[in-house]
Amino acid sequence: MPSARHDRQLKLGAFLHVTGHHVAAWRHASSEPRGIVSLAHHVELARIAEQGLFDLVFLADNLTVSQSGVTALHHLSKAAHFEPLTLLSALTAVTTHIGLVATATTSFNEPYNLARQFASLDHLSGGRAGWNLVTSSNEDEAYNFGLDEHLSPDVRYRRGREFAEVVRGLWDSFEDDAFVYDQQGGVFFDPAKLHRLDHRGVYFKVRGPLNVPRSPQGRPVVVQAGSSEAGKELAAETAEVVFTAHQNLDSATAFYRDLKDRLPRFDRSASDLLVMPGIFPVVGATQQEADDKFGELQELILPEVGVSLLSKMIGFDLSSFPVDGPVPDLPPHLHGSSRPELLLAKARRENLSIRGLYQGIAGARGHHQVVGTPERIADEMQSWFEADAADGFNVMSPTLPGGLIDFVTFVVPVLQRRGLFRTRYEGSRLRDNLGLPVPKFRSRTGPLESGLGATQ
Amino acid sequence: MPSARHDRQLKLGAFLHVTGHHVAAWRHASSEPRGIVSLAHHVELARIAEQGLFDLVFLADNLTVSQSGVTALHHLSKAAHFEPLTLLSALTAVTTHIGLVATATTSFNEPYNLARQFASLDHLSGGRAGWNLVTSSNEDEAYNFGLDEHLSPDVRYRRGREFAEVVRGLWDSFEDDAFVYDQQGGVFFDPAKLHRLDHRGVYFKVRGPLNVPRSPQGRPVVVQAGSSEAGKELAAETAEVVFTAHQNLDSATAFYRDLKDRLPRFDRSASDLLVMPGIFPVVGATQQEADDKFGELQELILPEVGVSLLSKMIGFDLSSFPVDGPVPDLPPHLHGSSRPELLLAKARRENLSIRGLYQGIAGARGHHQVVGTPERIADEMQSWFEADAADGFNVMSPTLPGGLIDFVTFVVPVLQRRGLFRTRYEGSRLRDNLGLPVPKFRSRTGPLESGLGATQ
Repeated sequence: MPSARHDRQLKLGAFLHVTGHHVAAWRHASSEPRGIVSLAHHVELARIAEQGLFDLVFLADNLTVSQSGVTALHHLSKAAHFEPLTLLSALTAVTTHIGLVATATTSFNEPYNLARQFASLDHLSGGRAGWNLVTSSNEDEAYNFGLDEHLSPDVRYRRGREFAEVVRGLWDSFEDDAFVYDQQGGVFFDPAKLHRLDHRGVYFKVRGPLNVPRSPQGRPVVVQAGSSEAGKELAAETAEVVFTAHQNLDSATAFYRDLKDRLPRFDRSASDLLVMPGIFPVVGATQQEADDKFGELQELILPEVGVSLLSKMIGFDLSSFPVDGPVPDLPPHLHGSSRPELLLAKARRENLSIRGLYQGIAGARGHHQVVGTPERIADEMQSWFEADAADGFNVMSPTLPGGLIDFVTFVVPVLQRRGLFRTRYEGSRLRDNLGLPVPKFRSRTGPLESGLGATQ
Repeated sequence: MPSARHDRQLKLGAFLHVTGHHVAAWRHASSEPRGIVSLAHHVELARIAEQGLFDLVFLADNLTVSQSGVTALHHLSKAAHFEPLTLLSALTAVTTHIGLVATATTSFNEPYNLARQFASLDHLSGGRAGWNLVTSSNEDEAYNFGLDEHLSPDVRYRRGREFAEVVRGLWDSFEDDAFVYDQQGGVFFDPAKLHRLDHRGVYFKVRGPLNVPRSPQGRPVVVQAGSSEAGKELAAETAEVVFTAHQNLDSATAFYRDLKDRLPRFDRSASDLLVMPGIFPVVGATQQEADDKFGELQELILPEVGVSLLSKMIGFDLSSFPVDGPVPDLPPHLHGSSRPELLLAKARRENLSIRGLYQGIAGARGHHQVVGTPERIADEMQSWFEADAADGFNVMSPTLPGGLIDFVTFVVPVLQRRGLFRTRYEGSRLRDNLGLPVPKFRSRTGPLESGLGATQ
């Protein structure tokens, strides 16, 4: 692909996932599975990403030990991991420029606590915090928060939307210049620049104000990843970055256009929201080396894990069939079901065993997988970027740190030579690097002065 | 006081409070009030305390901007500050031995979230986390969490007790050796060593297990500071360190004995709980230097702040009287009230103006204040320690970093020479230094294996 110069450059997130995104990465000889609760491991990952001038590191989250035996036992991140806000806070002290984006659910938190912790993270990091706002789809989480059954998707989204409104309101409690620090006069802040929220909604009642000064970015960057209709609406209203998963360019382009087209209804423009699909890059000096590297990981998928994942996807239990034998015909009740029929057709067409079929779906877990040379990977990213399928990518390295080191060492320089990626950080705040504006202070309520108690 | 050698040594906490504990510290020329949201300031404080071999740094907390005009405007920490868990997480990466104790309320959190964050902090720090368990006494906090009126003290304590039970139970989800990290066999952890909590109580219903491996200390150290009857009972049942405030030895000794005497009823011994009163030390090379240093801070108390604090304490509004004039007689409705009468008697006896009287109560805000040479301060600590009034002290430096530097530079060496304080850390975990045992794993439920889903 020809070298090119662009006004616009792509953005990169490093999705940190313990020992790597490949489902069997933790079994690889280069992996240290004890990394799940090692600060040193995560410091190393963040520093590599920062050397590579990534915009941000990103942590997913869940609030339960996976209740599926196979998943919990063999897929390490489903069993236990650091809590993201504490881990990213620890990284503030040992990084200087990279954004720190933590997932936190609106389903099982209090907005005052969450607003405070993210505002605190933004101060600790000098303006590098981001919040990946999610609703909890995993019903197992509900059982850890007092519920006997999960909230309905509809309630989760409505609660999530109101939660976002409260949190953003609380972040605008003190105006930017509220703190005057007047030691001589003995005045710490100007009460005319402090605002209550006085929110009374369906799910939350929060008076405010938040006891944190307005943070260096005005507000932490709000990230989302929902792909349902409700998720896209919420993103169009409130998100500044959207992570998404697409296996091909057409699907990615359609999603990109869909989301950007929703923005004007919320008085927002296309540049107010960045779309960053996931990419799972396996980097080799030659195509053969990349294929071998990927093959080695694929071989590490335990048959029971692969068969379990495939069984779920195809809709019936394959565990009693020989793993290297043919995929059996579908039972009658699945005739006509589209995904099972597609999977079976693929197996027949490519003459795949059960193992061959699960290897195709298990490794990268449905994300856009590119196995090849640095140029090949850069080509793929460039074509998506130029086709308006992506403003950037959330890089899901198959192994960590190995895959991230490969990407930073070999792919980033290619992107830079093509003018597609920065050669130095634009600023010290996440918003500076993402090219997102600092939101103006906005409050629905007047200053708090009259609300303060009598001054004696 | 004679030099002495002890089997037992005293423990030291550094209570971090932005620019210092003196109510006017932030106005002092040596203070940088922007420190309220400066990571660098807090890193400096933690490193000074670690150089001084302190057991721990401690952060108080609240969940509201003070609604009293005078307090919020002039007493900086009541307006805004870092959220403690995120701040202490940031300190994990730049300290190595010092304990990190954060306050978090049981009134407005979810136990699953809190258990996770503290377990995560314990992993991040290699076993240095502590949780100061409080109930929220400030009714303003309730308005930020959906309530129209505050929870009653009784409900707060019962909820707090159940909260502590849930959190401690969740910390014992995975047994210590549950994670086998068997890359070859593909087994990440032993499901026979994973336990649900299955808690169904009055205030909480939490299934568990917690998705964090058992932490380096077994459990973070549990700290409390309640002094009510309910608070002391809860401390005797669950606390391992108790912070407390006493102005004289008799009161401290009585509290110490009271608390230790309660322990056997909970199958605990005196060494399972450390009592650490607050101390507010003003250090000078000579008594005169210390007095001058304190006097300088006292002069910085704004009259409106001092008068406001005194007015609250004496029960009527003194703001219309000249601050350098005499304290007026009590209005008739306060005749016979003990605290107002005592304050007035003190003013008359010592011939104090309103300013003189508020200076006596405002500076150290009711804590045990010692103004003097390093020897004098060490004498006071030694006499409390040897009289069984204290197992150690929570040091509330009047200014920060200045007062803490003074303490580490001048008082710590005196304590060390007397054999009263360590000359190196005993270990890398907070429990190692406090001399507290690592709690054995304990679960009410059998292993989770049968509860995991089918393995396909």
